[in-house]
Amino acid sequence: MITMFLAMALSAPAEAQTSNAALPSWRDGPTKQAIVEFVERTTKPGSPDFIAPADRIAVFDNDGTLWSEQPLYFQFLFALDRVRALAPQHPEWKTTEPFKWVLDNDIKSLEASGEKGLLPILAATHAGMTTEEFTAIVRDWMADARHPVTKRRYDAMVFKPMQELMQYLRANGYGTWIVSGGGQEFLRAWCEAAYGIPPQQVIGSYAGLKYQAGDRPSILKTEQPELVDDHAGKPVGIQRFLGRRPVMAFGNSDGDFEMLEWTTTGPGPRFGALVHHTDAEREFAYDRKSHVGQLARGLDEAPKRKWVLIDMKRDWETIYPDSN
Amino acid sequence: MITMFLAMALSAPAEAQTSNAALPSWRDGPTKQAIVEFVERTTKPGSPDFIAPADRIAVFDNDGTLWSEQPLYFQFLFALDRVRALAPQHPEWKTTEPFKWVLDNDIKSLEASGEKGLLPILAATHAGMTTEEFTAIVRDWMADARHPVTKRRYDAMVFKPMQELMQYLRANGYGTWIVSGGGQEFLRAWCEAAYGIPPQQVIGSYAGLKYQAGDRPSILKTEQPELVDDHAGKPVGIQRFLGRRPVMAFGNSDGDFEMLEWTTTGPGPRFGALVHHTDAEREFAYDRKSHVGQLARGLDEAPKRKWVLIDMKRDWETIYPDSN
Repeated sequence: MITMFLAMALSAPAEAQTSNAALPSWRDGPTKQAIVEFVERTTKPGSPDFIAPADRIAVFDNDGTLWSEQPLYFQFLFALDRVRALAPQHPEWKTTEPFKWVLDNDIKSLEASGEKGLLPILAATHAGMTTEEFTAIVRDWMADARHPVTKRRYDAMVFKPMQELMQYLRANGYGTWIVSGGGQEFLRAWCEAAYGIPPQQVIGSYAGLKYQAGDRPSILKTEQPELVDDHAGKPVGIQRFLGRRPVMAFGNSDGDFEMLEWTTTGPGPRFGALVHHTDAEREFAYDRKSHVGQLARGLDEAPKRKWVLIDMKRDWETIYPDSN
Repeated sequence: MITMFLAMALSAPAEAQTSNAALPSWRDGPTKQAIVEFVERTTKPGSPDFIAPADRIAVFDNDGTLWSEQPLYFQFLFALDRVRALAPQHPEWKTTEPFKWVLDNDIKSLEASGEKGLLPILAATHAGMTTEEFTAIVRDWMADARHPVTKRRYDAMVFKPMQELMQYLRANGYGTWIVSGGGQEFLRAWCEAAYGIPPQQVIGSYAGLKYQAGDRPSILKTEQPELVDDHAGKPVGIQRFLGRRPVMAFGNSDGDFEMLEWTTTGPGPRFGALVHHTDAEREFAYDRKSHVGQLARGLDEAPKRKWVLIDMKRDWETIYPDSN
């Protein structure tokens, strides 16, 4: 590492040093090179591929792209924790499915039930409170809860290379936006601290909101689904919130396929990338057969579409912020 | 005017000169003073009312607040123009209500029919095309169409004092957002040029969007209503898009009541204002009895709620950008 750094200091031009300094958790190689090369040619005045600052928009999936998502989406684990926490107020849950499955730790039955089991749990844990109350609940959980495998705080399982990448992009005039299948208000509760992304740049799935007037007005979260921000819902969410087409998109699963397609089929320079989970030792290794974050079509079509595959094992020097 | 300017140059402190220079279309008086005083005490480092830049959010209604809205909402006039333009392709419209009413110029019957008449017209003129096609249609219309009374381009009927106000706020670190009952994609087609507000800061009413995959993907506008961004829908739109409570809100009708209420009942310094249309000579004069932009509850409650009434006749030196 020191030898490499010395060699660079002696030979590389100033720009390359800056990029390397900005992305210390990325190993040198074709992936890092592709990112830096794209940013440089789209931001250098006079470059034929120059993109005006207003059009420099980069979108990021969250689960599996900016933080881990195994063994289950963390928001799903939050919902299960909430069912357990609320159970004393709902004695009937002990004998009522799907709540019974959660309390019996029978996650297989819950998963097998699909939407039919999931929706009542989402309604019980994500609706019926104000947005401010929900934010406080998520933040309290984030402070206390620990991941079942790593025993880390969940927000300590964000990917350090992606934090650096978003900072590097912002330093080069790119707006960074989250476009996640996860819940918008769930994400907003912790995304600013974790990624430097403010609430107005968080697009996620959402259910209804209801304004409650009065001396101390509030906004109630309801159960009515409005946007499922996954697959074809991602370009819809992007148009709804951003109103313009991004030029860079980062995902990790087939739920991100349409977001990458929409981003990379526009005119001018475009960049699409998929985080490929290849590191069973430092994180998790999964793709085609995973029930969470399945990646099959994206792997098949990436070469043809010139999407970059980010190989976690090969490309990342560090995974989590506290892991070296 | 020249005397006043000379007097100012001799006596006023540097900050006041800057504010006055920034708001030349606002006459000196309590309204301008209230705006400047609020901005100064919320942005001056060390001020007990200092607001961090990230929380400096100002929201603006559009129709009647940033541009005129008489004799009918301009987007409604756009829809009528579109029905006339599309009529040759729909011979059946000659004998089918509500289209027949438009072609016969029987706007009274159309208005009397309420939503029942309006929805088919919105569907025929605002849905069934891609977002890019719709943007082009709106821009073409904006270039060609003229207002029935003033004979001006519609986008020449934006309020110059409000353009200056938004610039002044942005120069002081405030984010400026539109929160309109008008259609989001309609607004986005011209708001950046007219107000300097980019598409991602335009919240409006919206119907569904549908992603169409393929080699050249597109996003289709559908007829399914999703958000009516008026009255209680405005705080909902604000929470959905911004995820934080604004500190300043500007409206002009009772459709903005809840937006001002939500904004001004939060903790810390807050600012709410209503544009009162008092100038029959230079613009239009209307409030309690108007079928467009009705303002009654707002007038009644403004003093109690400490909302500022912007009196167009008294407070504005200029109305439109080309009008002096």
